[in-house]
Amino acid sequence: MSWLEQSIMARKGVAGGKAGQTHSITEAEQGKYHYVYSAFSEPVLRVDPGAVIVAETHDAFEGAIQNETDKPSEILNFPYLNPQNGPIYINGAQKGDCLAVYIHSVVPRGPQPRGTTVIMPEFGGLVPTADTALLTAPLPEKVRKLNVDKDEGIVWNDRITLPYEPFIGTIGTAPEIEAISSLVPDYYGGNMDLPDVAPGAVVYLPVNTEGAYLFLGDCHAAQGDGELCGVAVEHPTVTTVQVDLIKGWTIRSPRLENDTFYMTVGSSRPMEDAARGAYRELIRWLAADFGFDEIDAYMLLTQCGRIRLGNMVDPKYTLGASILKSIAGSPR
Amino acid sequence: MSWLEQSIMARKGVAGGKAGQTHSITEAEQGKYHYVYSAFSEPVLRVDPGAVIVAETHDAFEGAIQNETDKPSEILNFPYLNPQNGPIYINGAQKGDCLAVYIHSVVPRGPQPRGTTVIMPEFGGLVPTADTALLTAPLPEKVRKLNVDKDEGIVWNDRITLPYEPFIGTIGTAPEIEAISSLVPDYYGGNMDLPDVAPGAVVYLPVNTEGAYLFLGDCHAAQGDGELCGVAVEHPTVTTVQVDLIKGWTIRSPRLENDTFYMTVGSSRPMEDAARGAYRELIRWLAADFGFDEIDAYMLLTQCGRIRLGNMVDPKYTLGASILKSIAGSPR
Amino acid sequence: MSWLEQSIMARKGVAGGKAGQTHSITEAEQGKYHYVYSAFSEPVLRVDPGAVIVAETHDAFEGAIQNETDKPSEILNFPYLNPQNGPIYINGAQKGDCLAVYIHSVVPRGPQPRGTTVIMPEFGGLVPTADTALLTAPLPEKVRKLNVDKDEGIVWNDRITLPYEPFIGTIGTAPEIEAISSLVPDYYGGNMDLPDVAPGAVVYLPVNTEGAYLFLGDCHAAQGDGELCGVAVEHPTVTTVQVDLIKGWTIRSPRLENDTFYMTVGSSRPMEDAARGAYRELIRWLAADFGFDEIDAYMLLTQCGRIRLGNMVDPKYTLGASILKSIAGSPR
Amino acid sequence: MSWLEQSIMARKGVAGGKAGQTHSITEAEQGKYHYVYSAFSEPVLRVDPGAVIVAETHDAFEGAIQNETDKPSEILNFPYLNPQNGPIYINGAQKGDCLAVYIHSVVPRGPQPRGTTVIMPEFGGLVPTADTALLTAPLPEKVRKLNVDKDEGIVWNDRITLPYEPFIGTIGTAPEIEAISSLVPDYYGGNMDLPDVAPGAVVYLPVNTEGAYLFLGDCHAAQGDGELCGVAVEHPTVTTVQVDLIKGWTIRSPRLENDTFYMTVGSSRPMEDAARGAYRELIRWLAADFGFDEIDAYMLLTQCGRIRLGNMVDPKYTLGASILKSIAGSPR
Repeated sequence: MSWLEQSIMARKGVAGGKAGQTHSITEAEQGKYHYVYSAFSEPVLRVDPGAVIVAETHDAFEGAIQNETDKPSEILNFPYLNPQNGPIYINGAQKGDCLAVYIHSVVPRGPQPRGTTVIMPEFGGLVPTADTALLTAPLPEKVRKLNVDKDEGIVWNDRITLPYEPFIGTIGTAPEIEAISSLVPDYYGGNMDLPDVAPGAVVYLPVNTEGAYLFLGDCHAAQGDGELCGVAVEHPTVTTVQVDLIKGWTIRSPRLENDTFYMTVGSSRPMEDAARGAYRELIRWLAADFGFDEIDAYMLLTQCGRIRLGNMVDPKYTLGASILKSIAGSPR
Repeated sequence: MSWLEQSIMARKGVAGGKAGQTHSITEAEQGKYHYVYSAFSEPVLRVDPGAVIVAETHDAFEGAIQNETDKPSEILNFPYLNPQNGPIYINGAQKGDCLAVYIHSVVPRGPQPRGTTVIMPEFGGLVPTADTALLTAPLPEKVRKLNVDKDEGIVWNDRITLPYEPFIGTIGTAPEIEAISSLVPDYYGGNMDLPDVAPGAVVYLPVNTEGAYLFLGDCHAAQGDGELCGVAVEHPTVTTVQVDLIKGWTIRSPRLENDTFYMTVGSSRPMEDAARGAYRELIRWLAADFGFDEIDAYMLLTQCGRIRLGNMVDPKYTLGASILKSIAGSPR
Repeated sequence: MSWLEQSIMARKGVAGGKAGQTHSITEAEQGKYHYVYSAFSEPVLRVDPGAVIVAETHDAFEGAIQNETDKPSEILNFPYLNPQNGPIYINGAQKGDCLAVYIHSVVPRGPQPRGTTVIMPEFGGLVPTADTALLTAPLPEKVRKLNVDKDEGIVWNDRITLPYEPFIGTIGTAPEIEAISSLVPDYYGGNMDLPDVAPGAVVYLPVNTEGAYLFLGDCHAAQGDGELCGVAVEHPTVTTVQVDLIKGWTIRSPRLENDTFYMTVGSSRPMEDAARGAYRELIRWLAADFGFDEIDAYMLLTQCGRIRLGNMVDPKYTLGASILKSIAGSPR
Repeated sequence: MSWLEQSIMARKGVAGGKAGQTHSITEAEQGKYHYVYSAFSEPVLRVDPGAVIVAETHDAFEGAIQNETDKPSEILNFPYLNPQNGPIYINGAQKGDCLAVYIHSVVPRGPQPRGTTVIMPEFGGLVPTADTALLTAPLPEKVRKLNVDKDEGIVWNDRITLPYEPFIGTIGTAPEIEAISSLVPDYYGGNMDLPDVAPGAVVYLPVNTEGAYLFLGDCHAAQGDGELCGVAVEHPTVTTVQVDLIKGWTIRSPRLENDTFYMTVGSSRPMEDAARGAYRELIRWLAADFGFDEIDAYMLLTQCGRIRLGNMVDPKYTLGASILKSIAGSPR
């Protein structure tokens, strides 16, 4: 029996973690992609828990950067960046519920070179930005176009080929009353850029408003911890996810489960606040559902907690805090 | 001749800094107050540059905290906090323009005790919060109701009376595509909680979308630097402002001018990033409009720049960086 | 009667705030200047409480930058920077006591142009540094030599003359077991770069080890909030201070009193932590000595606390939090 | 052939990475342990490159916490914490060289229960501290004593046993002129609390002063990322290291090599600055020694860099940034 059948999604989901009807969102069906997370937009789909959704995602630049001679600062039109599929309205979802999203697969699409990474002004972890506003001149802009193949990986140069390790960079639900740029990660998910949001994982998202309004996009073919220059290997994909709904499970921020660990996600600035947020939620989860005393969980995570840095470049930094299932035991 | 007649607003505004027609926004005229800054909302007024607007503002709790025995955590309904008047559509305003707002007056209204300050869980500068997420128990909730009088000040206790030094805590324009909580300060203004946004000052705001969509509210009867516990002396007011429009003056974030200084405003986390943002904009302003070499401005501000801490409690911290007019000279 | 006669120093000091014997520390008497704060060094003076000390301080570069064509990166020899006078051993001082330092005067000395400010690589508030380590190229180095006169001020250029507003940039006691670079500010004082440490103020410093070991240097002729480029108008001076000793008054970090306010000083990173540290100490002081309830002090400072940014460039940032004496009342 | 024979230590070290004479530092031979990193202390050993040193380390509390009923705040005597073995003088080491330390083994010693973890006031990642100074009351103090066995692991409770994964929490060289608390991590190493500083790894440390003055101590039996409550499973050990000297290899901060990756270490606040520092050094290393263009290395690490969080509790936070050897290739 797969771990998935014992997942929280399977045990508590309205659909019991079982796949239901399949829906597609092709580029044509999506039509206009979205640049904010909000319930102001008309849903592109309305689905029941259990629905499987096959979405054609764009890369973060909506395919606008085609050549290594392109200048991102001339081509890109802020804030119309990081286009998102959706919103997907989940029938029955209400504020205070939890939306489970099991990631089936992320598969590259489109003509080669499909992969794009760039250096652009005022963006990145080791340059002055709009937030860390300094006087020194920006680095020269640079575009790398890369062949990305599911099996053969990502060809960096003659010597280096990186494995294809795709994940969903941006995924989340709508805030209750806000419409927030898809460049931002926060309590509802969004632009977390966390490599664990990968095929084989279940992401748990807070439902903030009726219908949940799921958005997703910004798939990465590979990414190091922190997404250092701000732009992973961006690529268009066919991404397949399955949704389920856990009624009455109110979580403050995204959580994740895969075959080996439970994770909580924190997004904030400075980075220590993202770490604090993630770890506090993990402690509260261990206390609420796994039978730990809160202080004991605090001391235990001191010895075995794991941190994954998602991004150190977005308007909020994102970290995941996790504990092995073998240590945490089973949630009630 | 008053400094105002030589202000940037007077010299560059479409209305020449001259007062035009007066409009009122009473509570009844406002109807539903707003909790996000966005262009999704229907304007309550459409005015020409020069318009004078007399607005009945609510306090940050929309008057819900009436007694010192009230428990904020039970009464307040997050995210429906910090109600804003507006939006006010400014005819002719387009993305890339600057909206000038001259603050005529802020006058307390309503029955005594009109002033409210509270300690509530997970909010404040010296307690764990949603961002600085710690395990220690919150402070006990506490409400102070205070008599606030324009002339007699704010009675803290038998010995201490604070002067009435009102200002507008939250003011700004709509983002281009987002709808952001009125609890947040950012490049468009918002919940800056900066005491210099006071009667006698002109605030300059970026116009991000057609019509500008001006919002304002959250007036404070007094506030120390940082708004330490998160809640100044909140009070309902009649606030009078005059708007003007500077075509083609594109600014990245709010600026301010009064009789003695020019100020730029930065909102970010950590706090040093707010300071960097404010100072960099001031340097760029000095270089663009006052004839300074950028490096010379950097060195000069090292010797005479002034920092005012607005808030150290909101989702972003706000600081103002300023230079005396006597040193800066006159802008072109 | 001057406020000084009612100061904490006067009311609690072993010498009653009264001036005793005068000692000098000329350049020759100092001999070797110091680059660390520690009790490892042999005292240059041993004095009783009440002693007045007249010290010839060097500028932060020990006078090595003489011309505007000098290249700081070639001349300066890190970590041999920010030379300090002292240590001065205060007879009777023991761990847990408080050393009071009343600043009589800071007077410029040496040939014109006496003032120096520079831009150097990897240092400053708006450039990449060793801490905020980025990839962008540094700004070009630049030296400004400035005429500094007690009465005529600081001539910046034909149009701008800044007033002479001197203060002691670096002052403090030795840590108990450490020897810390004079470039660092912390709980014992050090490189705070806080303009309120000026003639007319009394600085209160924790005594961490027998004899206190007072150091001082790095006087600034003028400085804006934050010391933005990292180098104020540095200049050599004759600085006169008077010391007193408050037995058994144990403070965690520097405090300051002048004719109008009481201040606590916080040094940390990120900047909000410096603000938290300063404000918490001020609350604790108000609770311990002024009869305030701690929560009431927290709420009151929300309405009237004042923040002065010292530096945003040193290894720790320094802020002072203050309350007007007219509001605080008198300490017991 | 082992990777070690191809390590930088083996290829560039004065001793060619070969083990020389063995020296012991028993508790008796050490005598007084040290609480600062400095060259002010008399070396306990003087050794040649190649020397193998077998040191009896104390736990971070010098064995003072014996029972679960002990109160750390009463027993511990700040700043006399985190006792260090050493200093070890390396013959021939001069400022600008690099000290290589190959960690042979860390073996627990002393009677059971040997392991100690505690919650104490004002220390830890999820509580107010001296730096993040808040008003909320501390958590109750708590001591856990744990059986620690090399083979049987660490018995947390009836259900949970953690593997014994020991490493050296604090290791480094003396600063040039400072004496810095062994609680602090920085460019010279110190209290990094980085789990990769483990048996099988070579740590590279900057030599700041003649003789290098190597200190080490504070071994952990296990630790999660961030050392969340501030106290890992502390335990006394016999720790065996081998030193070598790389003449003229000047590094700014610690580096590390093991069989699979190259790592750089950053220690700073806020946490993003630690990450920036670590990643910038890794880029510079790749550019200097591995034939990468600096911008290409920046873009590549965006796709494959790895971050390990050491501590989020010490006066500076520590992170390691690494790249797989299979990607980086061989250094020249």
